[in-house]
Amino acid sequence: MKILLILAHPDPKSFNRALADAACEAADHNGHEVIFHDLYAEKFDPILYSEEAATDGPVPEIIHKHCEELCTADGIIIVHPNWWGQPPAILKGWTDRVIRPEVAYRFEDGDSGEGVPIGLLQARVALVLNTSNTSEEREELIFGDPLERIWKDCIFDLCGVKHFHRRMFRTIVTSTQKEREDWLEEAKILVDQLFSKVDKHHG
Amino acid sequence: MKILLILAHPDPKSFNRALADAACEAADHNGHEVIFHDLYAEKFDPILYSEEAATDGPVPEIIHKHCEELCTADGIIIVHPNWWGQPPAILKGWTDRVIRPEVAYRFEDGDSGEGVPIGLLQARVALVLNTSNTSEEREELIFGDPLERIWKDCIFDLCGVKHFHRRMFRTIVTSTQKEREDWLEEAKILVDQLFSKVDKHHG
Repeated sequence: MKILLILAHPDPKSFNRALADAACEAADHNGHEVIFHDLYAEKFDPILYSEEAATDGPVPEIIHKHCEELCTADGIIIVHPNWWGQPPAILKGWTDRVIRPEVAYRFEDGDSGEGVPIGLLQARVALVLNTSNTSEEREELIFGDPLERIWKDCIFDLCGVKHFHRRMFRTIVTSTQKEREDWLEEAKILVDQLFSKVDKHHG
Repeated sequence: MKILLILAHPDPKSFNRALADAACEAADHNGHEVIFHDLYAEKFDPILYSEEAATDGPVPEIIHKHCEELCTADGIIIVHPNWWGQPPAILKGWTDRVIRPEVAYRFEDGDSGEGVPIGLLQARVALVLNTSNTSEEREELIFGDPLERIWKDCIFDLCGVKHFHRRMFRTIVTSTQKEREDWLEEAKILVDQLFSKVDKHHG
């Protein structure tokens, strides 16, 4: 299957980068085709302008390519740190620009955009890998973990990707080398299980 | 009092722009000093790089100015549409770059970044004005309204701004001229009440 892997972290030596590499390696090892975008390394432009936002708006070639990759992917993996309960701006901009109407979702005829859209993505599973410096208890109680609803419900469920899994690795700043190695192993196992399993059941 | 007003919408003719103008007018009318940033018009660069992310990292002059305005504001108003349960990327980037350690929050000595920071903002009240094309019921039930926790808890409460108010205007795409006029009036009244009230109690 074709797996789209999106990484958003400014530091090429970050644990996020290591997570993305581990996910890529596991997917590759299982014979999947991986399309990997390191948004910072590629200097992805996150700004959505009005003209482009229109359903029939002019879409630059680079965004058109991203859209094509998104709507033909069988699986999606997103890797990013938790910054203010949200992804870094560069990844928010990928969401704004690439998850477009008529690519990832469509409103029914006669709907001006206020109704319930139909998801168009063919991907059967999405995996989100996050890193955090906030304890699980504080994240749940004080912040309400907005990233869970954002990725699961606001984005993937709306676009038709019903099989969703997310893992938040924490606490990064105080973690040991051994913990980080174990987490990378866990990321590989997750990719292995999630994407193989779906393939066997539906492929 | 000094009010910082941040707008994030690509269209200068948008209802968001009208909301920001209405808020500005009300604050101005009450004798407040308003610092207004239209992030799209100013082509704000939303990308946070690693060097700048460090607490003692080099901060460009434009970000330094934004930080100074943020930490000396007595009130903050944010205006943006709901895009995927989050602000547009340009505003996410303002959050990433301007809401900095030692400007808006500080970790206690000996804390590597995993603990509970102390809020440093002197603003006593924050108002967030949003627009949406999703019904209130669907927003609450299906999406969980991530913007509420993001602005209230992840950002303003953490930075010490305890008095928070948010108003989501909906449904924009199907609204009448009369509804939009009423909403602009409501925005003015909100600004009027929130900022005067706080002034009278604490000023």
